Amino acid sequence: MTAGFCQRCLHYAFDYETPKTLVIPNIGVGCVFRFTQLLVVLYVVGYVCVVQKAYQETDSVISSVTTKVKGFAFTNTSDMDPRFWDVADYVIPSQGDNSFFVLTNMVVTPNQTQSRCPELPNPSTTCVDDCDCIEGHSDPQGNGIQTGLCENYSTTAKTCEVLSWCPLEIDTKLPEHALLASAENFTVLIKNSITYPKFNVHRRNILPHINSSYLKRCEFNRATDPDCPIFRLKNIVSEAGEEFQDMAVKGGVLGIIIDWSCDLDWWAGKCYPKYSFRRLDSKHPVNNVAPGYNFRFAKYYKTQDGEETRTLIKAYGIRFDVIVFGTVRPE
Amino acid sequence: MTAGFCQRCLHYAFDYETPKTLVIPNIGVGCVFRFTQLLVVLYVVGYVCVVQKAYQETDSVISSVTTKVKGFAFTNTSDMDPRFWDVADYVIPSQGDNSFFVLTNMVVTPNQTQSRCPELPNPSTTCVDDCDCIEGHSDPQGNGIQTGLCENYSTTAKTCEVLSWCPLEIDTKLPEHALLASAENFTVLIKNSITYPKFNVHRRNILPHINSSYLKRCEFNRATDPDCPIFRLKNIVSEAGEEFQDMAVKGGVLGIIIDWSCDLDWWAGKCYPKYSFRRLDSKHPVNNVAPGYNFRFAKYYKTQDGEETRTLIKAYGIRFDVIVFGTVRPE
Amino acid sequence: MTAGFCQRCLHYAFDYETPKTLVIPNIGVGCVFRFTQLLVVLYVVGYVCVVQKAYQETDSVISSVTTKVKGFAFTNTSDMDPRFWDVADYVIPSQGDNSFFVLTNMVVTPNQTQSRCPELPNPSTTCVDDCDCIEGHSDPQGNGIQTGLCENYSTTAKTCEVLSWCPLEIDTKLPEHALLASAENFTVLIKNSITYPKFNVHRRNILPHINSSYLKRCEFNRATDPDCPIFRLKNIVSEAGEEFQDMAVKGGVLGIIIDWSCDLDWWAGKCYPKYSFRRLDSKHPVNNVAPGYNFRFAKYYKTQDGEETRTLIKAYGIRFDVIVFGTVRPE
Repeated sequence: MTAGFCQRCLHYAFDYETPKTLVIPNIGVGCVFRFTQLLVVLYVVGYVCVVQKAYQETDSVISSVTTKVKGFAFTNTSDMDPRFWDVADYVIPSQGDNSFFVLTNMVVTPNQTQSRCPELPNPSTTCVDDCDCIEGHSDPQGNGIQTGLCENYSTTAKTCEVLSWCPLEIDTKLPEHALLASAENFTVLIKNSITYPKFNVHRRNILPHINSSYLKRCEFNRATDPDCPIFRLKNIVSEAGEEFQDMAVKGGVLGIIIDWSCDLDWWAGKCYPKYSFRRLDSKHPVNNVAPGYNFRFAKYYKTQDGEETRTLIKAYGIRFDVIVFGTVRPE
Repeated sequence: MTAGFCQRCLHYAFDYETPKTLVIPNIGVGCVFRFTQLLVVLYVVGYVCVVQKAYQETDSVISSVTTKVKGFAFTNTSDMDPRFWDVADYVIPSQGDNSFFVLTNMVVTPNQTQSRCPELPNPSTTCVDDCDCIEGHSDPQGNGIQTGLCENYSTTAKTCEVLSWCPLEIDTKLPEHALLASAENFTVLIKNSITYPKFNVHRRNILPHINSSYLKRCEFNRATDPDCPIFRLKNIVSEAGEEFQDMAVKGGVLGIIIDWSCDLDWWAGKCYPKYSFRRLDSKHPVNNVAPGYNFRFAKYYKTQDGEETRTLIKAYGIRFDVIVFGTVRPE
Repeated sequence: MTAGFCQRCLHYAFDYETPKTLVIPNIGVGCVFRFTQLLVVLYVVGYVCVVQKAYQETDSVISSVTTKVKGFAFTNTSDMDPRFWDVADYVIPSQGDNSFFVLTNMVVTPNQTQSRCPELPNPSTTCVDDCDCIEGHSDPQGNGIQTGLCENYSTTAKTCEVLSWCPLEIDTKLPEHALLASAENFTVLIKNSITYPKFNVHRRNILPHINSSYLKRCEFNRATDPDCPIFRLKNIVSEAGEEFQDMAVKGGVLGIIIDWSCDLDWWAGKCYPKYSFRRLDSKHPVNNVAPGYNFRFAKYYKTQDGEETRTLIKAYGIRFDVIVFGTVRPE
């Protein structure tokens, strides 16, 4: 009996089972059947493999960007002395990495010192006499620490005196036309190297077929010079659908997007950057706060007698963010 | 024979084969069979499609961040003159991009000049006479190039003289309480616009239902104002499980994480940012070096006779990194 | 008839269909059949699950980097006064985030003021008399706004006078040997914390088994100290296959790549950073423009009588970009 049981087990394990099939020798039915099979094969090869490339792995890009702005400007307005501006003056930060700011407009408050002055007049700072001002109080809407005195701001208004960097900045006097209007003609050279680490692929946005003499004189133009890495700021802004002079007054953020989506199959062979431009901040939404783009910085000086003074600059301008993206498919 | 062979081939190519099936007309067995099929269908539709959304492509986010800190502080300690601090003084870098630093504590070394002074005393710099000091030697643990002289550092200690920015910084005198303790009440406005390029989806963290007057007075609170983009620094730090005043003394790095993981299926419709906060550096690990976060920078001045002097500042403070991430699923 | 129809429908719905199978009780054929099945199982378990881990989800890394450079240098060349350089002088920006620049060479133009001076001689700026210079004209290749006068640049050359920051920078006088050649011995401490938000995994590059005393004296070496987060600049550059002194003359961009690709299966347990180094800009391609890495910045001063002067520095050096990447597979 045991021998019989083992043999039965062996039979189960090593018997070959196959469905009985019925062959219908009808050409019509057969054609329909083969055509259906063909559709399945076409779907797998054509769509899954060729279109979607589902057999491929993907990898994200590692990118390095350097930028170099070129150009100068001259300003001669009633508010300021005539002044010449070069790269060291208007590009902040100066290092030229993947985000750079070009100053286009500003409110300058020179010769500020640590001292006392009456507040700018607004409902919470106007006063009649010293009783309205609290010593040591700091109003979050104000500009300094109150000293407890009520002083003449002008012949008509009295405001609480504050300890602060005086004179206070009056940032409502922003020029209506951008001070550095000629910044639209500045150019920027963008150098971008990328690596797909998984596939050991390296590319740079200065393409192999471009020579040095062309690079010295070219300027990006989507139609005529799509591979030139030198961009005129006005063109960048207008490609993003904006007007440079409008944007220059209150500032903004502009994205320079470099798309390196590559297909590394041998028959594809191409891996070129595609440039596009988009304004990244909101222009005129109904709900906004602090529209445009600005920040404050100061240059610090020392007078002969060792006192620290500063020039406060509320800088308006366009921040250019170079954004590199792309996924690659392997070799 | 050839004709017969061809015909056989044709038969093989266009015969329709189908398995012979056995139909068991038993309701019980049939129910079990259909129930099994139902489970498979439920798995595919319910889990793969609805839960995992495996039919969807995904895309990574392109993000643009601007930040603007607001607030001022007043310091009056025995070490320094009374001083008023505003944004231009304590926010570094001033541009307000996705990483900003708020100064909370510092060691200031004013009036440094290129000159000679005795080293700070430590085992490798103390000397008895000039023979212990080697001209031109630069000790990696030291602060300058030795001149070969042994000078009095104090009445009790003699150290090698060095060429350096003198007087040397004594960074052991870090204030125990953060100098700019009131930085906890500063606020920061974070504006974030995102784009999913593959799906042409644009969103910003100022949501459509928020109006400008609300934005002027609101403050982020996870319970009551979860959509307000204005954050009080103290709250950010406490949401990350830290104490602002502790962190302000030696500095640290704090992540403001904005999660834009969106589901763009038409019935989902929502794509809101979710804010979270995490301390990114290590607080008190057993193994650490240079805990906290600090860096040195200098303000350069020129004296009347053209000599360069500088004020060296070892700045301690909190670096806030705005980190945006998210993957989207398509429309 | 209706009852019969319903019954037939019911039969279709709940009949159990199964193919008729043919059992071939042949050990040889059975073995081949089972072996084929085994191959399929091995492929699914061995390749898809174990090698490709296709059952796992993946997640991208969120990273925070702080860097701190240490070292000082002394320069004594004929062009400049002897000068001592420390971190605050040569690291730009000073904050120490994931991209820092170490100054190695420079062209310094001190005492520039807003004034007038003759242009640097080149074909488009040389002139014979005032008629060759157009008042208000700004040549894109030039350095300022022409005043319309033709002045002596030297005893042999006359050039158009320009309004600019004068004296003009002569950047052809770049030192042939890097001024801060000793920068090769500077060290940098890199602290990197990462988070995989989907899996709540946190890691830092100071590994748990490293103690503080080791951190104070160690230096990265791929063979002997692969986990030490302190890197000597010379070694970083040489690991990238470059020569520090060559690169220091004209500058460059160097990537410090930290790969956190982790496998979080319980039996894997390890999640260590792997460091690699790569030069990210192009060294000597046939087609290049503005090779190396440099940027201009200025230090602003005020003279006793309130006039603004500046020292313009064309800074050449090595920008180190810390690039963190990695995908994780879940626990």
